[in-house]
Amino acid sequence: MTNEKKQIKLGVFLAGTGHHVASWRHPDAPADASMNLDYFKELAKTAERGKLDMLFLADSLSIDSKSHPNVLTRFEPFTLLAALAQVTSSIGLAATASTTYSEPFHIARQFASLDHISGGRAGWNVVTSSIESTALNFSGEKHLEHHLRYQRAEEFVEVVKGLWDSWEEDAFIRDKETGEFFDQEKMHELNHKGEYFSVRGPLNVARTPQGRPVIIQAGSSGDGKALAAKTAEVIFTAQNHLESAQEFYQSIKQQAAGFGRDPEKIAIMPGIFPVIADTEEEAKAKYQELQDLIIPAVGLQILQNYLGGIDLSAYPLDGPLPELDPEASNAVKSRFKLVQEMAKRDNMTIRELYQYVAGSRGHHIFVGTPEQLADKMQEWVDHKACDGFNIMPPLLPEGLELFVDKVVPILQERGVFRTEYEGATLRGHFGLEQPANRYSKK
Amino acid sequence: MTNEKKQIKLGVFLAGTGHHVASWRHPDAPADASMNLDYFKELAKTAERGKLDMLFLADSLSIDSKSHPNVLTRFEPFTLLAALAQVTSSIGLAATASTTYSEPFHIARQFASLDHISGGRAGWNVVTSSIESTALNFSGEKHLEHHLRYQRAEEFVEVVKGLWDSWEEDAFIRDKETGEFFDQEKMHELNHKGEYFSVRGPLNVARTPQGRPVIIQAGSSGDGKALAAKTAEVIFTAQNHLESAQEFYQSIKQQAAGFGRDPEKIAIMPGIFPVIADTEEEAKAKYQELQDLIIPAVGLQILQNYLGGIDLSAYPLDGPLPELDPEASNAVKSRFKLVQEMAKRDNMTIRELYQYVAGSRGHHIFVGTPEQLADKMQEWVDHKACDGFNIMPPLLPEGLELFVDKVVPILQERGVFRTEYEGATLRGHFGLEQPANRYSKK
Repeated sequence: MTNEKKQIKLGVFLAGTGHHVASWRHPDAPADASMNLDYFKELAKTAERGKLDMLFLADSLSIDSKSHPNVLTRFEPFTLLAALAQVTSSIGLAATASTTYSEPFHIARQFASLDHISGGRAGWNVVTSSIESTALNFSGEKHLEHHLRYQRAEEFVEVVKGLWDSWEEDAFIRDKETGEFFDQEKMHELNHKGEYFSVRGPLNVARTPQGRPVIIQAGSSGDGKALAAKTAEVIFTAQNHLESAQEFYQSIKQQAAGFGRDPEKIAIMPGIFPVIADTEEEAKAKYQELQDLIIPAVGLQILQNYLGGIDLSAYPLDGPLPELDPEASNAVKSRFKLVQEMAKRDNMTIRELYQYVAGSRGHHIFVGTPEQLADKMQEWVDHKACDGFNIMPPLLPEGLELFVDKVVPILQERGVFRTEYEGATLRGHFGLEQPANRYSKK
Repeated sequence: MTNEKKQIKLGVFLAGTGHHVASWRHPDAPADASMNLDYFKELAKTAERGKLDMLFLADSLSIDSKSHPNVLTRFEPFTLLAALAQVTSSIGLAATASTTYSEPFHIARQFASLDHISGGRAGWNVVTSSIESTALNFSGEKHLEHHLRYQRAEEFVEVVKGLWDSWEEDAFIRDKETGEFFDQEKMHELNHKGEYFSVRGPLNVARTPQGRPVIIQAGSSGDGKALAAKTAEVIFTAQNHLESAQEFYQSIKQQAAGFGRDPEKIAIMPGIFPVIADTEEEAKAKYQELQDLIIPAVGLQILQNYLGGIDLSAYPLDGPLPELDPEASNAVKSRFKLVQEMAKRDNMTIRELYQYVAGSRGHHIFVGTPEQLADKMQEWVDHKACDGFNIMPPLLPEGLELFVDKVVPILQERGVFRTEYEGATLRGHFGLEQPANRYSKK
């Protein structure tokens, strides 16, 4: 009897005291978590103990001082992951980096260096930076418009991939006798000249252990989905319902096939925000405890930000969401739509919406037992709604420890999650092949 | 009796197989050193065993494929130092970062994050990138002219320092009861609007353990010296003779005083390239062994690069250096001058010059015993030629091990070098005060 059960992919999205906006107020939370290295080291070790595929770090290049305290100040992702690579040996390390406010040469280089430093565990979450005020930190008056950001992103990713091919795997001869250090034929200039960038190369980092760090993408707008279908190997997304998740899943995999890609080689991983306890009642009480810690002004602000800065202060908190024009906002379009849909379908008031969004930031909230969570995860994977999940614990470190100690063993027992790492690269965990260098004749 | 002997500051400039261009061909060299993390970890531990003030990493944002094999491919400095911070606990960690091809927000953030990750050991070697072709990797047609690079650098450093003051030390209240996470009055926007940059801030990293990472500078042209005198706390320089080193020392310290700075709080550290053995004869033989490994074409290319790309192929190798116009070159001016002076003063042929430059890249070559090296170092420090040295071992790891095991104990015995770290920050090692935040009252 062969075990043909579809394996679940699991990431953990690390964020200070947890993904619930009021988590820092919880008695168990280390309130300084977002800049506490020892704390992050413990989280990384816990995740690796759970044999998870990867750690995932978000990022931002500006501050919204009214937002989640976890993201006011935090580590820069490359430095943090290079440090965490030293206390782990197998788990993947995915960092978010923006294509709107950086240069392809820098990003190619930092990920290549991280891939070497971690022995092949780097992943790049490609984002275009949705917060408008970011431009003000980079000598720009105005943030690039949504569609142009995605045009730039596509070219940016192509340049980065090109730079990662600068050196063929066997380029370095290092013959002490003859004095030949490398084979000139196996070093390549990219000589890219495009609309946004002109980059000569070669990159000054050798071919990396993974050949190419894994490309992750989270865009859910039309442009975002197209970019993901074209370039991403892992897709992070916010999906709240089985049906809409199935639609998203099918649509991405079809688009990818249309681009000549193998849909099986793309892992779609919605975020999930699990509140777990031994009984449903305990889990509900736990969730309510966190919700009660939300300060109303903070909650409203987060909802407004989520909608791209639209001012809702004129509307009663316990009334409905007014009609809003998504085109009038430079927000993340998929989020905008999500909130509008929830407001209509479930008749949610502004207060209910901000409580929902503030708590989980629009991601799928699960409240229940470890067994129920394992059921739900398997259901989604079996019904082609996703290939796995990016776990967003509401409260850390507790939420990750519970997941690793209570949920992972159930999944392992059911034969749908690894009991040991099969390899030591992120690409390996996801069953992705080592990409060939475009120049290699082999 | 109090010990009033002037203490020597010591850094080690790490570079793959060592600073000698042919070091990789030496039988003892691990030829893959420049991208070997375990190797760098061992070097870092050795340097810390020697109680050195800091590790120093150069950097470059382009490849000169005909240059030193160590710098063809290498780690990106922030990721490497964040990793090395995990296997060391006291030694300073200085990274080179360019002001010409980056944004102040990114650089401020990466150094701030590294400072947190290392517990206050970060230093920034500010460079303006002298290699012209770098522009081609950053969508630029033409490299910024020398004087403009320094103008940009000065503004860049000011912006970075401003961003490091974004948060006062006691900005974070984290009162779980009241829900007050931070004091809005203690978070500051910079709102910088200058000639090269406009940056709003605040930085999204909390005030760092050192308050500000240590600023290092290596410019030796007029513009470079002015920038160093104005902003640097540590100055790295190439000095070959006691007298010219004394002139440089006095000139920088005077200029710094002119800018209202305390000259005692600036450490001037020339590079030194020590070939050490138990006897002078053995040391000479060791040096010759390395020199004999230089391939003539490589040596000539390095000399040409050193002079800003001037083509010397038409001149006989065993003839004199022709008259060259420094203004016609966009090279590092101080290096240009150094080579011209050596050629004249010592009647050196092109071959002799390339051998000299290729071996040590213009830095002070010392060949002798540990005792003699200790004498020379003390002589320079006592005669106000410098405050210490940046050690550039010709061959690694051997050169660093010898320095730590043979030279450091002599300096310690003479009471001119620490036997234990007094603190755990780079600022502390250099006797620099914690800078006050510009916004803090009292």
